[in-house]
Amino acid sequence: MAKGCKVTQSPPLMTALSEEQKVELISAAIKAKDGSYSPYSKFRVGAALLASDGRIITGANIENAAYGPTICAERTAIVKAVSDGIRSFSALAVTTDVPSPISPCGVCRQVLREFCSLKEMPIFLVPAGYDPANTTDMESSIVVTDLETLLPHSFGPEQLLQPRLP
Amino acid sequence: MAKGCKVTQSPPLMTALSEEQKVELISAAIKAKDGSYSPYSKFRVGAALLASDGRIITGANIENAAYGPTICAERTAIVKAVSDGIRSFSALAVTTDVPSPISPCGVCRQVLREFCSLKEMPIFLVPAGYDPANTTDMESSIVVTDLETLLPHSFGPEQLLQPRLP
Amino acid sequence: MAKGCKVTQSPPLMTALSEEQKVELISAAIKAKDGSYSPYSKFRVGAALLASDGRIITGANIENAAYGPTICAERTAIVKAVSDGIRSFSALAVTTDVPSPISPCGVCRQVLREFCSLKEMPIFLVPAGYDPANTTDMESSIVVTDLETLLPHSFGPEQLLQPRLP
Amino acid sequence: MAKGCKVTQSPPLMTALSEEQKVELISAAIKAKDGSYSPYSKFRVGAALLASDGRIITGANIENAAYGPTICAERTAIVKAVSDGIRSFSALAVTTDVPSPISPCGVCRQVLREFCSLKEMPIFLVPAGYDPANTTDMESSIVVTDLETLLPHSFGPEQLLQPRLP
Ligand SMILES: [Zn+2]
Ligand SMILES: [Zn+2]
Ligand SMILES: [Zn+2]
Ligand SMILES: [Zn+2]
Repeated sequence: MAKGCKVTQSPPLMTALSEEQKVELISAAIKAKDGSYSPYSKFRVGAALLASDGRIITGANIENAAYGPTICAERTAIVKAVSDGIRSFSALAVTTDVPSPISPCGVCRQVLREFCSLKEMPIFLVPAGYDPANTTDMESSIVVTDLETLLPHSFGPEQLLQPRLP
Repeated sequence: MAKGCKVTQSPPLMTALSEEQKVELISAAIKAKDGSYSPYSKFRVGAALLASDGRIITGANIENAAYGPTICAERTAIVKAVSDGIRSFSALAVTTDVPSPISPCGVCRQVLREFCSLKEMPIFLVPAGYDPANTTDMESSIVVTDLETLLPHSFGPEQLLQPRLP
Repeated sequence: MAKGCKVTQSPPLMTALSEEQKVELISAAIKAKDGSYSPYSKFRVGAALLASDGRIITGANIENAAYGPTICAERTAIVKAVSDGIRSFSALAVTTDVPSPISPCGVCRQVLREFCSLKEMPIFLVPAGYDPANTTDMESSIVVTDLETLLPHSFGPEQLLQPRLP
Repeated sequence: MAKGCKVTQSPPLMTALSEEQKVELISAAIKAKDGSYSPYSKFRVGAALLASDGRIITGANIENAAYGPTICAERTAIVKAVSDGIRSFSALAVTTDVPSPISPCGVCRQVLREFCSLKEMPIFLVPAGYDPANTTDMESSIVVTDLETLLPHSFGPEQLLQPRLP
């Protein structure tokens, strides 16, 4: 990936997670890809959410012959978590089988928007082939971003609740 | 619910699950409702899938301010299961807070279609207030159906793979 | 298609549309396929709705690289119509490039459910290669069905409005 | 809306549309709201796309009792256009009944991504109460943005086609 592609991020957020937590989260996302059901796109995606209580919840993309009902890895992870009572998250990692960092689709960004902090939840976009055990890789190939960056001017619960003009 | 609303079902399938399994599955669906995030509809739904290996996977509906990204309880349960490697199911129970049995929406029927047997997976639609401990309730208020009934002439992987005419 | 696959339908409904209207509607669905954007599935679908006021509204499937945001032909047609103020429909025709009649996916059945009569709107599933000008074809290859058949025990506005039990 | 909320935009793009075209497009979006079917959210949205050939295609949000099948105004407009053979767009206007400019949800951003230029299609977010006839309003209340801003690091056809690592 070109360096120009990287998202700038403020140092405090980067250090909120320990190096060990980042490695564990990214490893979980990589492993989660094995659960992918993607016979149509043959594009496997794995995601791992770090809950504020330290738990890691993973997901993979689950496709459908009718295409529209397809659910991505990120959404699988978040509905798993939320339906199990987890409502507070501190990081997300997403990975695929392609050699560049792949970002959540707009649907997933919208679903994350409902539950995640716009600025205080780092999102790690991890290219295929990244080796979590080799932490020097992190500096060179992973994109770190956040929801404020990925979904600016977002529509959320506050917008829905605004008073309607007559 | 009127008796005329019930779906007829052949005896062999009905007896595939033990009474104990049915009670456990329905109890899991009722409990799963607690994970519902439904601030917009205020319509809580809980679902529980029985995997062929005996595991029970639950889900609740997770709504979104933009409405379209909302994911129902049944889909939450199935993407949880599939992303964790489970691909074979033997029963589904769905329940809500309203006093009549509520059936999966079309989106969920389509997602179930990708993974579930059309005829050999009983689907239990359980009205609010049903008491699993009181098994005589089962006869009078639950609708038992299957995917063949709920999604006839369905579109699935076989249809997508048909040769296109020139 | 095997004869056993056909859906029985009561004569009154069959005669509600003139032969000319049926031919026109099916021709419109066939032509609508040309608008399909389906680079991923290469499965073109065309749909045509007959509004109660006689207008015909067509749609094609519009796919998306992220799969989930894909919108089918039937939904394209109905959102076109509804957003233009049409809320009453008397028939639907759907066709594809494959040689058997293809039925709407569950998502589309659910969207139709919001606006269409369950029993009084014939749905024509038209195999590729059907020639509307040759009306004897109609008897042998088209499946005629309705929403009550395709989405029994459906979830709709009435269910959403039911009182919640405490 | 606070001035700080406005998205900076390069002058050339701003002048690509005539003042008359902008007024016509925004007026079309306002009028399109009348086609909204939004009994659940009571949040009407209207959208208008300007095709490169000068045509304006409008849409409104069409909700569904099951929530998930809801289709927003922006997607209604784009599937209308694309299914009618229009694949090139030069501007989008979106408006609602609330007094602040409302931005497309993530799903719509993803659907726009498939067809629209990231940088060369201005997107006008128009608050309720805006009067297109009073063009001095434009400077003070409308947000002008683009897809590159709303969906950075987007997932699109190019990403889907990348080679998979073994
Ligand atoms: Zn996604
Ligand atoms: Zn559903
Ligand atoms: Zn469909
Ligand atoms: Zn939207």
